[in-house]
Amino acid sequence: MRFRIFAGLTLSLMGLAAPQFARAEYAVKEVGSFYIGGQEQAVSGQPISEIATTPGMRPFRYDPNGEFEVGQMYVQYVRQARPRSPLPLLMWHGGGLTGVTWETKPDGKPGWQQYFLNAGYDVYVSDSVERGRASWSRLYDGPPIFRTKKEGWELFRIGPPDSYSADAAKRASYPGVQFPKEDFDQFTKEFTPRWLTNDARSIAAYQQLVDKVCPCIVVVHSQGGFFGYNAALNNPEKIKALVLVEPSGAPDPAKIEVAKLKSVPMLAIWGDNIKGHPLWQNFAAPSARLREAVQVSGGTFDWVSLPDAGMTGNTHMMMMDKNSDQIADLVRDWLTKHGL
Amino acid sequence: MRFRIFAGLTLSLMGLAAPQFARAEYAVKEVGSFYIGGQEQAVSGQPISEIATTPGMRPFRYDPNGEFEVGQMYVQYVRQARPRSPLPLLMWHGGGLTGVTWETKPDGKPGWQQYFLNAGYDVYVSDSVERGRASWSRLYDGPPIFRTKKEGWELFRIGPPDSYSADAAKRASYPGVQFPKEDFDQFTKEFTPRWLTNDARSIAAYQQLVDKVCPCIVVVHSQGGFFGYNAALNNPEKIKALVLVEPSGAPDPAKIEVAKLKSVPMLAIWGDNIKGHPLWQNFAAPSARLREAVQVSGGTFDWVSLPDAGMTGNTHMMMMDKNSDQIADLVRDWLTKHGL
Repeated sequence: MRFRIFAGLTLSLMGLAAPQFARAEYAVKEVGSFYIGGQEQAVSGQPISEIATTPGMRPFRYDPNGEFEVGQMYVQYVRQARPRSPLPLLMWHGGGLTGVTWETKPDGKPGWQQYFLNAGYDVYVSDSVERGRASWSRLYDGPPIFRTKKEGWELFRIGPPDSYSADAAKRASYPGVQFPKEDFDQFTKEFTPRWLTNDARSIAAYQQLVDKVCPCIVVVHSQGGFFGYNAALNNPEKIKALVLVEPSGAPDPAKIEVAKLKSVPMLAIWGDNIKGHPLWQNFAAPSARLREAVQVSGGTFDWVSLPDAGMTGNTHMMMMDKNSDQIADLVRDWLTKHGL
Repeated sequence: MRFRIFAGLTLSLMGLAAPQFARAEYAVKEVGSFYIGGQEQAVSGQPISEIATTPGMRPFRYDPNGEFEVGQMYVQYVRQARPRSPLPLLMWHGGGLTGVTWETKPDGKPGWQQYFLNAGYDVYVSDSVERGRASWSRLYDGPPIFRTKKEGWELFRIGPPDSYSADAAKRASYPGVQFPKEDFDQFTKEFTPRWLTNDARSIAAYQQLVDKVCPCIVVVHSQGGFFGYNAALNNPEKIKALVLVEPSGAPDPAKIEVAKLKSVPMLAIWGDNIKGHPLWQNFAAPSARLREAVQVSGGTFDWVSLPDAGMTGNTHMMMMDKNSDQIADLVRDWLTKHGL
């Protein structure tokens, strides 16, 4: 059973055929990382104290005043000895999350980082400003927000609004949900505090990342959609394709030069249970408006609603869903169609 | 020129000979990660508000009250298709730092993670509780401390006490220092806030890590020394060797069963400029006392002061120093001597 999704492209669904490119191993030249973006800022006027950091150690003088780096991003890469694609694939996570989004899934099975390594791409996974290994600073404006388990369960559409229970056994999920819900608590260990004031810092750091490692393919998730659209607008010659997994926002086409996006093929993928979900209709609307404008200007913006294509039960965290490989197949087929 | 450091072991210094095991590539089976440790805790009584997280998105209701995971650790692994060692090598970072300690150095050259992958080990690099991808929580006791650039420069012995200047051009370093000091600001992007109250959580998470992936070799740095000694005491049958890079603390031999450590070969490595440095004499003293007790009990605790072995200028961050490969050679030679 095969479904026709894009013009000229067929998609094999639900593991009916093992992907031809799957490999049991790949030759790696280097696993490495770097920091990019950020700048120095100073703190002053804080009290000095005596502290001991390790048991059995004598206290020492702690002066919290001085210079710090703020606004940097962390990027980890796996460079293959013989990549099959000349372009690296960059993976940008969503809000309140880190690059771990793309790694091993909460159920312990391989995620999209490993999938695209197996498929032969050099893969760059970043932790954006303030998240994960990018570290965080007292100097970011305002208190951070913290995602509860309830918010994660409902916002990511594992279950409908008000379906979460503190008692894991009582949590209601959407019928046939693809998220490995028995591993939901494990998943929430990835949640990271989030400021609402660091967009400018993040945009600057992503721009430096594009300057450093592109031309490239960019795959974004959720809040990363905003940064991905922005990067494509500012670097249409360097971003050879933009894959958007449920982008939660998009620039207003009336306020940007939409024609700049003509040379950047785009693909947005949406999971199940968005219809009739006001919050998610809201999140999807800006991307739908931008898509229309891009298509009018002659650009390519493909749009896949997974349930319309016969794949049901997918959540906002579809790269962690049980059928994540099939969704990755879809992305890879689309990249192949675009010669990437 | 070769120096005899351990009985029956010679060490090639300063790149006089390329290590025989260096490889341009290695076959990888899986790059992956997992969270371990931690537990659920609830927050209540905080005010509800309306927020927008992405430009162009309508505000939504933010309720910060609910359940969260706290106390977890993040572990990333690279599993080889054909590892040369049956034992994985675990790398545990120091205080105010993350697993990035072991990755690419601030000067962009490969660090110890890549060295030991090239040498044929499966390598597990963790971010301990509260650091990096392990995330952090409002529920940790007390405010975190923040490491200034000055503290990093002086505590890590890039320069002597009071040698730091906010003006990078005016920073005085030790003569012949091996740290790539022109990349010091880049290095400080790795610094991460640190609580003084999470030792019990960290010990619990490290124990779960040992339960999950050992028997193994453990390589620790600085604050990680405390966790490494502790893990060896509690799992002497599973930790087949413990390599300590400038451990900043150690258990009091009078308060532990030192004989338990008899089966765990240990190696401590110390850089330059510790003699005459009161703070560092203090840090080294507990390990020196433990070493004496271990040796009396018939155990193996080797001790290398790099300047005494002819390698000068090394800092507390010796895995980032220009001659980091030579120090890694020393570690590898020692592991080889112990059949690992």
